[in-house]
Amino acid sequence: MTTITRAELEVWDVKDPLAAHRQDYILPKGVIYLDGNSLGPLPVQTKERLRKTLEEEWGEGLIRSWNDADWVGAPTRVGDKVAELIGAEAGEVIVSDSTSVNLFKLAGSLLPSEGPRRKIICEKGNFPTDQYIVQSLKSLDNGVIIKELPREEILDAVDEETLALVLTHVHYKTGEIFDMEMFSRRTHEKGALVLWDLCHSAGAMPLALNTCNVDMAVGCGYKYLNGGPGAPAFSFIAKRHQAKRRQPIGGWFGHQDPFAFTETYEPAQNIKQHLVGTPGILGLAALESGVDLLLKLDMTKVRQKSLKLVGLFQELVGEFGNGFGLTALYPLPPEDCGNQTAFCHDSGYQIMRALIKKGVIGDFREPNIMRFGFGAPYTRYTDVWDAANILNAVLTTEEWKRPEFSQRHSVT
Amino acid sequence: MTTITRAELEVWDVKDPLAAHRQDYILPKGVIYLDGNSLGPLPVQTKERLRKTLEEEWGEGLIRSWNDADWVGAPTRVGDKVAELIGAEAGEVIVSDSTSVNLFKLAGSLLPSEGPRRKIICEKGNFPTDQYIVQSLKSLDNGVIIKELPREEILDAVDEETLALVLTHVHYKTGEIFDMEMFSRRTHEKGALVLWDLCHSAGAMPLALNTCNVDMAVGCGYKYLNGGPGAPAFSFIAKRHQAKRRQPIGGWFGHQDPFAFTETYEPAQNIKQHLVGTPGILGLAALESGVDLLLKLDMTKVRQKSLKLVGLFQELVGEFGNGFGLTALYPLPPEDCGNQTAFCHDSGYQIMRALIKKGVIGDFREPNIMRFGFGAPYTRYTDVWDAANILNAVLTTEEWKRPEFSQRHSVT
Repeated sequence: MTTITRAELEVWDVKDPLAAHRQDYILPKGVIYLDGNSLGPLPVQTKERLRKTLEEEWGEGLIRSWNDADWVGAPTRVGDKVAELIGAEAGEVIVSDSTSVNLFKLAGSLLPSEGPRRKIICEKGNFPTDQYIVQSLKSLDNGVIIKELPREEILDAVDEETLALVLTHVHYKTGEIFDMEMFSRRTHEKGALVLWDLCHSAGAMPLALNTCNVDMAVGCGYKYLNGGPGAPAFSFIAKRHQAKRRQPIGGWFGHQDPFAFTETYEPAQNIKQHLVGTPGILGLAALESGVDLLLKLDMTKVRQKSLKLVGLFQELVGEFGNGFGLTALYPLPPEDCGNQTAFCHDSGYQIMRALIKKGVIGDFREPNIMRFGFGAPYTRYTDVWDAANILNAVLTTEEWKRPEFSQRHSVT
Repeated sequence: MTTITRAELEVWDVKDPLAAHRQDYILPKGVIYLDGNSLGPLPVQTKERLRKTLEEEWGEGLIRSWNDADWVGAPTRVGDKVAELIGAEAGEVIVSDSTSVNLFKLAGSLLPSEGPRRKIICEKGNFPTDQYIVQSLKSLDNGVIIKELPREEILDAVDEETLALVLTHVHYKTGEIFDMEMFSRRTHEKGALVLWDLCHSAGAMPLALNTCNVDMAVGCGYKYLNGGPGAPAFSFIAKRHQAKRRQPIGGWFGHQDPFAFTETYEPAQNIKQHLVGTPGILGLAALESGVDLLLKLDMTKVRQKSLKLVGLFQELVGEFGNGFGLTALYPLPPEDCGNQTAFCHDSGYQIMRALIKKGVIGDFREPNIMRFGFGAPYTRYTDVWDAANILNAVLTTEEWKRPEFSQRHSVT
């Protein structure tokens, strides 16, 4: 049983080296936000950035802003900034489209499969869109073989018939982390490639894609990068693969010379090939603002703090949770997880609704999972204490049994 | 030679039934904007709409806004509004991704080709991304045959081996219009389908997709719909095709039940199948604001006015243009064109740069084309007069020969 007190956590907050960054984010009064792993909060500076993009660049600059405000350079400019966050080089990351569309393009660039290498291995139970997109590759190459395996069987299955692994670095439900270095190395030893989905790790912890020799990656702009709802996503391709791989959706912005308006598609021989249509500038501007904020932070400190936040929440909830039938989804130490933790309960949906009503925002994932994420730049240790206590109160009073919490929302 | 005077055009402006709508758009002082066919201007109300989306929905509502602000319904809600503009029904249009990605999905849903129908016919010289995307279909079905034909040969080429026509309703350079009703009917008579690109006609003129029995269509959000730079695009699919066609990029938002998180992709049997990843809400909000404004207008009056604007510009420039080596790109009467007209000159690039410097914004298309678009809701007859006179002055003074206008921009 923990002996920590709220007063001690107040001291932790004061001493927190990231404490000053909390003021950079809009956090509504009365809310403890433990869902930045689903949608990051609004950075204060994004309001001014969007005003400028809207009123000065679009309103006053009009079409001229494609050059004068460098709209045309935004996908690579913001990509280069994301590259800094994930241990990649300038020219290896581009921002465009959604994670799903980017995954289709990247994994599609591995096709058509040749010779004996026809197998793409994924983790069974990974986030659905990753699975669906990999299943979609059949539309590009009916000979490709998709293997969905439990985590512990993946490495043994990598062989000379394996084309690639498509894995998510941090699992969306359990938070479990893959060892990126080891999985990349072991995959390369068999001559296969590895494509990582960084949705739940980019911006949340130090990443070293090039040190790990990663081949390709995708990631999300609206979670830890705080780019806003449905923000554009990013694609990473190691320089050694850029010229020889061809992605399947050839649009004008992916052409070698988009404004030459030639009749035949000639793919750019660099990261720009992964653009398709006209980049969405409002989304790019908001994302750039979010990434600019993160670049001021030391990712090692971000990770250190989030380990403490997750560990504290696990410990506090652990004290009373079992008594109410609450079980840890995946009882791993924080070091083996992303910046999140999850608890299961048969009435998890209602309990989460009741919690949200009380201002503690996490989210629910079918069938019984309450998920809590800990954005280190803006979450205080006392927030974790308060959230655990409010959860305790919701369970003690059985407030979650009120009928209003049973009605399902369209997004759960 | 025209006998019209600026004073008479001032009277036209006063009597213009659309005159009151000009105040709904931000138009910078000293600018005559003849490029709304490339990027529509910022609607005044979009500033407040984006502020609300940013500060209230994202900032205060956070993740809850997927339900509370109906972010999750935005792609179909805005789609239903676009449907009203183009003569389609609710449930036939969805807003998502870019025009290029949408074209890949829609045309891809026609594949794999079966039996003798393997031919997709396009117009030679159509906008490059349409050509590139149709060429990309080979990645989905190597048996498909792409025929790029001059406009006058297209109908004769439609036969029992034709799968579909993919045509752009209004040509991006010449402005020439296809007869949508006739081309759709003649294509159907041969048992083939027709997919229209409405980038240069949606929001610019009355459209009647269902009356013309159109099968599929795509269109742009950032031109006449005034949705902002790189706004999300739209897809139309007639109800009769929705359940039986399957698009090639299966992502979680296109699933029958996205939040059930099932392991296998089961496509929605309606327009929602054409979603892929998480919708970009900032772009959708700006687009909805632009479309809301257009829905207050009578599209017949919009078209009537733009015919007069285009005709007036052609007439005024016609008076002096030849003397400076300016020739009409496609000397058609306005009725046979979209809301645009174009003139050719060997130094078109420099002349356009000089014009823009003087506040008259059109655009340049390789190799020698100066393109002018006329957004009827916000362009005055006197603007056309003034623009023609400024062009005349730039040519007379040879101001365009100054070295500063020769340097190429990345976006031309």
